[in-house]
Amino acid sequence: MRCISCEGRYDGDDAGTCKQCHEDHKAKVAFLTTTHPSSFSDMFLSASDDEEAAGPVLAHKAVLVSRSSVLRAMLENEMEESLSGIIKIRDVSYRTLRAFVNYLYTAEVCLDEQLACDLLVMAEKYQVQHLKNYCQKFLVSNLNLDNSFSTYTFAHQHNAMQIIDAALTLIIDNMDKLTAQEEYAELKEKDPQLVFEIYEAYLSKQVNKAAAHATTKPLYSPFGNPCGSFGNPQGFIF
Amino acid sequence: MRCISCEGRYDGDDAGTCKQCHEDHKAKVAFLTTTHPSSFSDMFLSASDDEEAAGPVLAHKAVLVSRSSVLRAMLENEMEESLSGIIKIRDVSYRTLRAFVNYLYTAEVCLDEQLACDLLVMAEKYQVQHLKNYCQKFLVSNLNLDNSFSTYTFAHQHNAMQIIDAALTLIIDNMDKLTAQEEYAELKEKDPQLVFEIYEAYLSKQVNKAAAHATTKPLYSPFGNPCGSFGNPQGFIF
Repeated sequence: MRCISCEGRYDGDDAGTCKQCHEDHKAKVAFLTTTHPSSFSDMFLSASDDEEAAGPVLAHKAVLVSRSSVLRAMLENEMEESLSGIIKIRDVSYRTLRAFVNYLYTAEVCLDEQLACDLLVMAEKYQVQHLKNYCQKFLVSNLNLDNSFSTYTFAHQHNAMQIIDAALTLIIDNMDKLTAQEEYAELKEKDPQLVFEIYEAYLSKQVNKAAAHATTKPLYSPFGNPCGSFGNPQGFIF
Repeated sequence: MRCISCEGRYDGDDAGTCKQCHEDHKAKVAFLTTTHPSSFSDMFLSASDDEEAAGPVLAHKAVLVSRSSVLRAMLENEMEESLSGIIKIRDVSYRTLRAFVNYLYTAEVCLDEQLACDLLVMAEKYQVQHLKNYCQKFLVSNLNLDNSFSTYTFAHQHNAMQIIDAALTLIIDNMDKLTAQEEYAELKEKDPQLVFEIYEAYLSKQVNKAAAHATTKPLYSPFGNPCGSFGNPQGFIF
């Protein structure tokens, strides 16, 4: 069968819902998506490049505290941001901040690699797990040999386990090609711990492969061929 | 296969999503469900029985205008309610109002027949189509011979097409039993137009049934049995 969400093929074991339930879910998502009118907003979020952009991003405290535990703590504890109604977010571009706030209202964003990285950092900082997962999926789907080391390093910095697992698998499956890359030499210099981790995963894979290979061969016998000319004591009836 | 949402059985043609997409949808619904903290609320909604209950229901303008076009018009046009921050809702119990507001935040409600009717009326009044559909589904699933006339009448008053269709089908399939009920006599008295509509639907069903029956019989022939003793001019070679 073909999934009407992701359009991938699946069989009975991986079946989810019937068509009607899928339609119901879609309608529920549409209903719960908060439109983002500037009216009645009670917060301003400003990015580091505000001057060049369209000013602060408007938002509602009710939505912010509902989506992010960090923003909840910030706003419910009468910190400066709650009293002033302004949250200044440094080191984040207007484009990223706008996409971040919009995601809190709609759970939708159109990603490119840069935006996915920037939003993952924001999602990690403000504890928006749903957005973090969304960015991880995108970055995993964009993994390739050219960006595997940089993505792996980035994922480590931001504790992005889905990406770490996927990147590590790709890297250890292509060790011979990747160790010839310039990025490999750079990584050894910059973060030797990560390189050790890669080699340890590679070693572990090799050992497992060897063990799996051994179980498919006849068991080791000190007599060589167990039915050979030296005889097999266990096979004989004395 | 069995749907993991409604647990009903379905076959390939009615397949919706794979399991992974279903999980993704569920996570999205959970993310978009706005928790309903009293903090930062900027609206009070009061029911007709406020004195006896726990006071007004707190809410956020941002959520109300996002879910209901009627509330949007009311609040965005600086009507009295917007300026005062208070919406007085008459003829609605605290229980219904609380469930209504909670639905706007979560798209969830635990219904009984009375609450489903009360919420359907509110959903119609405030144009919350998603809630109206939810109540209609519940009332359709609770239709039976005892409540068919009252539900049909109620559905007509509130333009609930899903219920009208289901109730009408149930009624015309059981005309003989239902016309013996006291409710039938009452309905003739109170709303003859509805009774005419029922009879017209019944008549239409009978006519269609007769037509379908006719097409499965041999075509009418003025000669009776076309191969009978009077001969069949078309069947003979002269």
